Amino acid sequence: MYEQFEAYITSQATLTQDELRMIRSLASTRRVRKRHFLLREGEICQHKIFVAKGLLRSYHVREDGSEHIMRFSPENTWTTEHDSLFSQIPSRIHIEALEDSEVVLFTRESLEKIHFAIPEFKAYIDRFLTSTLSQTYERIMMNLSYSSEEKYQDFITTFPDVFNRVPLHMVASYLGVSRETLSRIRHAQAQKE
Amino acid sequence: MYEQFEAYITSQATLTQDELRMIRSLASTRRVRKRHFLLREGEICQHKIFVAKGLLRSYHVREDGSEHIMRFSPENTWTTEHDSLFSQIPSRIHIEALEDSEVVLFTRESLEKIHFAIPEFKAYIDRFLTSTLSQTYERIMMNLSYSSEEKYQDFITTFPDVFNRVPLHMVASYLGVSRETLSRIRHAQAQKE
Repeated sequence: MYEQFEAYITSQATLTQDELRMIRSLASTRRVRKRHFLLREGEICQHKIFVAKGLLRSYHVREDGSEHIMRFSPENTWTTEHDSLFSQIPSRIHIEALEDSEVVLFTRESLEKIHFAIPEFKAYIDRFLTSTLSQTYERIMMNLSYSSEEKYQDFITTFPDVFNRVPLHMVASYLGVSRETLSRIRHAQAQKE
Repeated sequence: MYEQFEAYITSQATLTQDELRMIRSLASTRRVRKRHFLLREGEICQHKIFVAKGLLRSYHVREDGSEHIMRFSPENTWTTEHDSLFSQIPSRIHIEALEDSEVVLFTRESLEKIHFAIPEFKAYIDRFLTSTLSQTYERIMMNLSYSSEEKYQDFITTFPDVFNRVPLHMVASYLGVSRETLSRIRHAQAQKE
């Protein structure tokens, strides 16, 4: 599974064989079964997680038991709980495998070593952070200004692959619309087609 | 107004006199009158903006004319339109002064020079980006899972100063709740007190 990560990272940054060896020496890998957890609320997040295979979700559970999905993470994406990883405070989210998954893990210390030793990797992470920030602003804009229909259309267009792999109630939870509303929208669209 | 920026940045990063001189030589300053714009939708964003005095808002206007506020930026905060600044694509948002304001501006090229020459400044920007990302995830979580009452309470607690400086309909637009709902909540809370 590490090969998947190496293929990804060499597509994003120009790295020497020595640099790739160093990164490899600081990574660890793990298989996670469907419905198993990489992080639970209240734990201190120990890793930045690269998904080599499978699909994860990050979600928050409110006191009333309602689940709110922050993020889906399919293959070739990163995920973590930034606050917990960098400030060592208890995580407010769970990270769960929605499918049997394979992940590559980096501790905060490993990442710092890599950033310090490999400017090309650091530059990639900077680009990645900026683009992630743009996407989260985009999502805030969507949350604020899109109708439920538009949110649904946007999700299908932006994450066609994820859409086909998760149950509808999770899509509803990610979009912040009720399951009933989403079912109604799907039904209306199916009739149009 | 540049002194305000220098006081801020030296509270965030340990910089030498030479480094401060370099940063100063690459900055420009501007006064913006209330209701005037630093950026309009469709323009290419040219600057990262530090607010030395006053208050800005970043907002998006939909085709139906509705305004959606992405961000309030009071003194000692940064703002920009990342996508437009870094990818040189037309901005989707407006940045407007809600009060007479004073700002310190950096072009993308200036920032790159500063990052390259001053690792301490770059480290500060990295911390800042990570913390901004956490705050935006926090806001997404709030958008998804908070009731209108909770959103309102959270806003008053998190931005007490901004709350007293902007009209209620802008708070409503920021929170993604209707003006009527927010008026009802305020009224109910005033009666409780």
